[in-house]
Amino acid sequence: MKKVAVILSGCGVFDGSEIHESVLSLLALEENGASWHCFAPDVQQMHVINHKAGEESEEKRNVLAESARIARGDVSPLSELNESDFDALLIPGGFGVAKNLCDFAVNGAEMVLNDDVKTVCTAFAEAEKPAGYICISPVMIPAVYGAGAKGTIGSDPDTAAAFNAMGGEHIECPVDDFVLDQKRKLLSTPAYMLASTISETSKGINGLVKKLVELA
Amino acid sequence: MKKVAVILSGCGVFDGSEIHESVLSLLALEENGASWHCFAPDVQQMHVINHKAGEESEEKRNVLAESARIARGDVSPLSELNESDFDALLIPGGFGVAKNLCDFAVNGAEMVLNDDVKTVCTAFAEAEKPAGYICISPVMIPAVYGAGAKGTIGSDPDTAAAFNAMGGEHIECPVDDFVLDQKRKLLSTPAYMLASTISETSKGINGLVKKLVELA
Repeated sequence: MKKVAVILSGCGVFDGSEIHESVLSLLALEENGASWHCFAPDVQQMHVINHKAGEESEEKRNVLAESARIARGDVSPLSELNESDFDALLIPGGFGVAKNLCDFAVNGAEMVLNDDVKTVCTAFAEAEKPAGYICISPVMIPAVYGAGAKGTIGSDPDTAAAFNAMGGEHIECPVDDFVLDQKRKLLSTPAYMLASTISETSKGINGLVKKLVELA
Repeated sequence: MKKVAVILSGCGVFDGSEIHESVLSLLALEENGASWHCFAPDVQQMHVINHKAGEESEEKRNVLAESARIARGDVSPLSELNESDFDALLIPGGFGVAKNLCDFAVNGAEMVLNDDVKTVCTAFAEAEKPAGYICISPVMIPAVYGAGAKGTIGSDPDTAAAFNAMGGEHIECPVDDFVLDQKRKLLSTPAYMLASTISETSKGINGLVKKLVELA
């Protein structure tokens, strides 16, 4: 059975991992015969958004503790993720990626990765193990894989321009498909960067995860 | 297109809606051709559990605002749910059901329903519209449907005994199946009361939701 490490960034589309994408990813991994374990950085969230009001709250929340909600408690600190224990890596989307795993939400193409994210993602890339980046998480691809790495965030022109400005090669992609950078065993799919329903989102994620497990 | 109202109770298995069950329910509704809208009571959670540590936290959170994380912001107060606008009702599980929608977690068979939950669930029952109760949420069935209503929480003897003590008729059910009380158009499935994986959970929920939409 192939083992896949999943990196979460909190719990909720506006300040953490997108919940639908995360759950659909875990389901797709099991349905393709893989096992999974979730990890998240043990850091404070950039901020907390009241998802009903759509406004920033005064609260402080921890990325690891909130990610545990999606993982039903079974989540480990990202600093404990050893690439040699897993066959592949998968990163769902949500603004938490751009706020807690890197600072793309604030700094755009000048972004830097969280230290643990950089260590772990680079380890999978250097070991030539397959990795899947969903929704907004492909903005981290150029910082991990270097110049020329191919990926998609769908068709949003500003985000695509930032992807290219960081050295990546952005490829437009419809919601129900994914992009494969064959040389790097690197997969990406737009999910809620384009989707308007959960069933639309599931199509691209199911395709990406099936290929990820095949490549592992 | 059939319209289904979904009642959430927060966001996270230990103090809110079980996230996997909620997302799988929404996906199954779409895949069976139904539309959905989420509702939750605008009340403070009974408490907040740090899902990583497994311990109660000092924090205060609101059930409606946290449910909005699962609904990507698009959730309405349960007090605004009018049964006549929908064809069916669906309630995912999680301890939030037993803590925020009723007080079963504290009072067992002496439980009472939240006022809005009582009003809404009873309205669907009296209108003879189909309803699906998932995981622990069937403990509310006797209080809504009265003596003789059939339902399942799987096979946990204490919870089943409480179900019967409240006047219901508990029926054992495996994780991949559901129980139908034909007369009341009332469906229930054990989900994470029995499941150990997300793919197991999805089987029972997919079967229940398919039948729910057929009956609607």
